Parts: sequence; structure tokens; C-alpha cells
Amino acid sequence: MNDASDSLSTTLAALADPTRRAILARLTRGPATVTELAAPFSISGPAISKHLRVLERARLISRGREAQWRPCHLDAGPLREVAEWTSAYRRFWEKSFDRLGEYLAELQAKRRETTSSKEKSHARAKKRR
Amino acid sequence: MNDASDSLSTTLAALADPTRRAILARLTRGPATVTELAAPFSISGPAISKHLRVLERARLISRGREAQWRPCHLDAGPLREVAEWTSAYRRFWEKSFDRLGEYLAELQAKRRETTSSKEKSHARAKKRR
Repeated sequence: MNDASDSLSTTLAALADPTRRAILARLTRGPATVTELAAPFSISGPAISKHLRVLERARLISRGREAQWRPCHLDAGPLREVAEWTSAYRRFWEKSFDRLGEYLAELQAKRRETTSSKEKSHARAKKRR
Repeated sequence: MNDASDSLSTTLAALADPTRRAILARLTRGPATVTELAAPFSISGPAISKHLRVLERARLISRGREAQWRPCHLDAGPLREVAEWTSAYRRFWEKSFDRLGEYLAELQAKRRETTSSKEKSHARAKKRR
């Protein structure tokens, strides 16, 4: 376990919460105060402050020193590391997607066969009438 | 909080551990048994089994039903969701990288100015001698 993997673990743990991800999404629209960040959630002020501390420790946000409301800013840098780690697996999820595609194509082919054989037997039945 | 964000949280929490990420990295080389997966780590069998359960619950791995050693397979599908979530922030980490670039360029410009003014005063001092 090296420092890089530790910082990646810290980032991923901070992101593993829908409220914290919603806070980051809000900050893509610009800096916001704690009160503004808390507004969309039905959770207490201390709960929001705890989420902000987790994000700050993971260096995903920073807080201004201006005045007492100290606005929060998005620091997207650590997300680059997540993207790089994930991209190494791209060919594996594309492979599983290809397998799904092949399976669907197979199903469709079978369906066409069944339909055409049904049509043939329908035509034969019609002839007999 | 919807189902999609919950599955993303489960995936991210499962990834937030260097041993679990190392297990996934090993599985990119092909299926492996629990014994093979445990080999590089100095942790107990039960600890490895716990990590595998977390990865299995997050649908990042699946375990074969063949024989008693039940080999583990990589299921990279959920990583696609992580990559998609992360990519929405690309322009923000690129922006912070640009700001760093601008800052470094500024520093270099200042350094050049200081050096050239030092050289000038050095030349003047030489003339006076």
C-alpha cells in the first residue's frame, strides 16, 4: 500500500455517498456557503458540516477564508486519479457489453427463425384449406 | 437518493480499499481461486473472504459454481458507471490544471525578469571596476 493508493482510497470513500456527490454537483455551478449547500437536503446543519469535513479531508473541496460564511469551492483534481484508475478497466466493461450484444443478436436470430418457420407452417395450413 | 446513486455508492465504497483494488487488478489477468487471490497479501483467509464478499455484493466479481474452489471472475460493468460519473468533472480538473500551468508560467516570467535585472546590475558593477 503506497501513498497514491491511500489518497485514491480516501477520494473513493468520500465519493461513496449520494449527499456528498450532490454537494460536488452543486459546486460545479460555483462556490456556495454551507447554508446554500444544506438547503436541498432534509438533514441537520451538523450532518452537512460532517460531509463537508470528509470532502475537505479528501481535498475535493476547499473553504474560503473570506468573512464568516467561508464559501466552499470545488477542487476536482483528485477525480482525475479516479478517472485514470477506472480507464484501465474500460476494455473489460466493453468486453462484457460486447458479450451482451452478441447474446441479443443471437436471441433476435432465433426469434426470426421461429417467426419464419411459423409463417411457413401457416402458409402450408392455408394451402391445405 | 435513487437506485442508480445507491448502486454507485456501493461500487465506490467497494473500490475504496487498496486490497480490493489489487484483487480486481489480479482478475484482469483471468479468473483466480481464493487461495491464488490471497497469496500476495499478508492477511488471513477470512479477511480475504470478507473483501471478496464486498466485491461480490457490488457485482464487481462473480464466483463460479464449478467444483469446490469456485474461481472468481472480474465483472467490470459497474466501473462504467464510475467512469461516466467522473467524466462529468473532467473540465473542472482540466481547469485547475490550466490554472497551475498559468501560475508556473508566471513564476518563470518573474524569474527571468529577476535574472536579467541581476545581470544588468552585474554588468554595471563590472563597468565601474
